[in-house]
Amino acid sequence: MAEQGLLLVISGPSGCGKDTIIHEVLQHLDGEGFLSVSMTTRPKRGEEVHGVHYYFVSEAEFLQNVQNDQMLEYAQYGENYYGTPVGPIRALLSQGKTVILNIEVTGGKNVRRLLPFAVEVFVAPPSLKELRRRLEKRGTETPDAIETRMEIATRELACAKDYDYIVINDALEDAVQDVLAIIRTSKLKKENMLNKLSEVTDYAES
Amino acid sequence: MAEQGLLLVISGPSGCGKDTIIHEVLQHLDGEGFLSVSMTTRPKRGEEVHGVHYYFVSEAEFLQNVQNDQMLEYAQYGENYYGTPVGPIRALLSQGKTVILNIEVTGGKNVRRLLPFAVEVFVAPPSLKELRRRLEKRGTETPDAIETRMEIATRELACAKDYDYIVINDALEDAVQDVLAIIRTSKLKKENMLNKLSEVTDYAES
Repeated sequence: MAEQGLLLVISGPSGCGKDTIIHEVLQHLDGEGFLSVSMTTRPKRGEEVHGVHYYFVSEAEFLQNVQNDQMLEYAQYGENYYGTPVGPIRALLSQGKTVILNIEVTGGKNVRRLLPFAVEVFVAPPSLKELRRRLEKRGTETPDAIETRMEIATRELACAKDYDYIVINDALEDAVQDVLAIIRTSKLKKENMLNKLSEVTDYAES
Repeated sequence: MAEQGLLLVISGPSGCGKDTIIHEVLQHLDGEGFLSVSMTTRPKRGEEVHGVHYYFVSEAEFLQNVQNDQMLEYAQYGENYYGTPVGPIRALLSQGKTVILNIEVTGGKNVRRLLPFAVEVFVAPPSLKELRRRLEKRGTETPDAIETRMEIATRELACAKDYDYIVINDALEDAVQDVLAIIRTSKLKKENMLNKLSEVTDYAES
């Protein structure tokens, strides 16, 4: 049986750059790392692949997951449900893979309850001023929507203390290297190394 | 006032390669990292510099440190005392420096008591067989002395579980990168980042 893999949770306010960091980190991990896939009841579109872009399921299956406490977070938009199921994460971990879970700050509590071994990283912007600049630069939102996002970000920053590590995304490549170091280091934790250590002593002198 | 620095303890059996790893890590840290300096009562020789090679002190001063519980470990060889004083480590840490402490496995307990915030790394050889090969290759010890070292190493490996991280020194450059990742990651721990995080929220929108 493979050793348990590593689950890395990445959260942070909208505009902090966590999606870009995760994209770069996965490139570096080169097939060793997987992004957790969301579940939805909305129909598949165009080129989308089940298990890659989403797990496309029926409403009954989705709600069964909710009922069985197998959802880290979920929400309904219009007629469709979207959520983060625990099952596929557990399956990848049991194969020894590194799984990155990109989740809302509000989802952190459920992760801690259902997957207490997760290593949790909070990505913060260098400053609220810079966060506002980034959101404005996107140009996709009204001034009112930006104000709302800024209020949410301020609330979310207060949750950073509940995470294991805090990465301040000032320069992207530094933040990527920070996350890669956290992944490398987490695998060296003594509780993850005791199997390997027993190989050092058991078979070595035979 | 500077933020508290990082104290990294590195221990491991004789022949595991920890001295070489530390040397390489200090090169990479490039002036940001310091090796903890031992204290001795033996006279200074040749080019040796006080505070670099050793702290050269009188027997009275040495024993005062012992009596004040300021020694992580110490021993007497012939007429001279050798030991690891806590004071200079605390001084470097208060300047925000990264300090590496190369200490015997038996010294770990005192580190945990006097410097509980230390990040502790145990360096293990890839196997006991390989450790024996390395010790024999050195050619500096009798077969009996090697047997004794192997017995001590086996006992010391059982202490690895008391450390935070375990690095298996199979390929030197990998082990060096492991230790560098541990240093980088330790600085990202939330308890070390809360000051920086308060700067994100406090001054940002002003």
